[in-house]
Amino acid sequence: MNADMSPGRRPGTRAGIASFGRVLVIRLGPGEDVLPAMERLLLDARISAGVIVSGVASLRHASVRNIVRFPERWPIEPDMRTQTTVAGPLEILSMQGNVAPTPDGDPFIHCHVEFSIGAPPAETYGGHLIEDTIVATTCEIAIAELRGSDVRRVHDPETQTLELDVDPRLATD
Amino acid sequence: MNADMSPGRRPGTRAGIASFGRVLVIRLGPGEDVLPAMERLLLDARISAGVIVSGVASLRHASVRNIVRFPERWPIEPDMRTQTTVAGPLEILSMQGNVAPTPDGDPFIHCHVEFSIGAPPAETYGGHLIEDTIVATTCEIAIAELRGSDVRRVHDPETQTLELDVDPRLATD
Amino acid sequence: MNADMSPGRRPGTRAGIASFGRVLVIRLGPGEDVLPAMERLLLDARISAGVIVSGVASLRHASVRNIVRFPERWPIEPDMRTQTTVAGPLEILSMQGNVAPTPDGDPFIHCHVEFSIGAPPAETYGGHLIEDTIVATTCEIAIAELRGSDVRRVHDPETQTLELDVDPRLATD
Repeated sequence: MNADMSPGRRPGTRAGIASFGRVLVIRLGPGEDVLPAMERLLLDARISAGVIVSGVASLRHASVRNIVRFPERWPIEPDMRTQTTVAGPLEILSMQGNVAPTPDGDPFIHCHVEFSIGAPPAETYGGHLIEDTIVATTCEIAIAELRGSDVRRVHDPETQTLELDVDPRLATD
Repeated sequence: MNADMSPGRRPGTRAGIASFGRVLVIRLGPGEDVLPAMERLLLDARISAGVIVSGVASLRHASVRNIVRFPERWPIEPDMRTQTTVAGPLEILSMQGNVAPTPDGDPFIHCHVEFSIGAPPAETYGGHLIEDTIVATTCEIAIAELRGSDVRRVHDPETQTLELDVDPRLATD
Repeated sequence: MNADMSPGRRPGTRAGIASFGRVLVIRLGPGEDVLPAMERLLLDARISAGVIVSGVASLRHASVRNIVRFPERWPIEPDMRTQTTVAGPLEILSMQGNVAPTPDGDPFIHCHVEFSIGAPPAETYGGHLIEDTIVATTCEIAIAELRGSDVRRVHDPETQTLELDVDPRLATD
């Protein structure tokens, strides 16, 4: 393959222009599981594509996934990942990521989360948000809808995973 | 109580639709205390509801609060929290949260912050931003105003705290 | 100097009102170096001022800069900083910061990054993003353009560095 390897030009790279539409403002109450609750409220709001721009919370406990080793060939298999549940009390410091529809039209939430604990004070942990992340008092999230372009998940033959894509793509020189 | 306990349906959960209005772009100079300076500039800009979408900085020192243990009954009392002041040099990596008016009309800033230190290199700490977080060279913040719905703090009888609410709330099935 | 030292009033502090324009949605493919790829795509999109509102990724390794000690007089010299390259697999949890033009018209990206590792599980590191931060499978970034005001980098005689400025500045009492 004779691909252009200069910055921003690798075969898997895509970019496009959208704009912000509606902003979904969420307060999750005590006992909610953050990821499935967010999925449900996105469906209620009929938001299929958006950017997670803010998330702060106090949690009973948090569950995240991280990668332990990479495969020689994609995709990343389950045994190359580790799941961690950290006991609370803890605070969510940041939530970032996006939501985009899969080829089947299902919403696909890709959300990374950072949190801190009280003892040892102010230590932080994080990873890819998974289920069993439970709200103590509150979890306040803002998700900005993306409009004006088709943001979605498509199968990437290189990574063998559903990856983010935008249509139309940015015209490049 | 016979509340619906499916995801996104707990009694304390609320969600609503807003949109972004003006964006307050801030550069705090050397010596500023981040939280009170942010409060003052939000008043100057007459922004009463918004989302903190970005914050990067170099700091002399940072002060955060975290929770050490949860009460058997809400609210969380001061002796269940710990305040930590971390000596700099350090960098703010992220600021997230929101601003919304209290029932008295005062702006209520809920901001969580993550920062890194130089030694041991790139270690991170964080928590709920409190006073006595002092800028070294710069602190660059962006706050996006929320419009088109009434975002505010209201007393929650469950947590015994002022919690985020949105009016009108999202119609749910 | 008889400067006002109340919050939000220090000599180096500036604030102004802008609004969000276009949103650049990026997926960087395997092998991309995050910072130069982001620079290239901002040029492609002709975005000279904006806010980095989201960034999640899996990385082969990440490189960040942190400050070790402050000078008695600004500016911060290279020997007061430390550069750290952390081996992967790792995940970017958050990217925040901004882009603004320098006096020469070049785009100036100020981006801080937080990431987590798989072993020890969910530990986090971070700092000022520098070159040699290489994508494993994907890096998904959203940058919201700033419009309606002149956001730029100007030389600050106090810190001896190019600092963020906004014109017109917010009228203050």
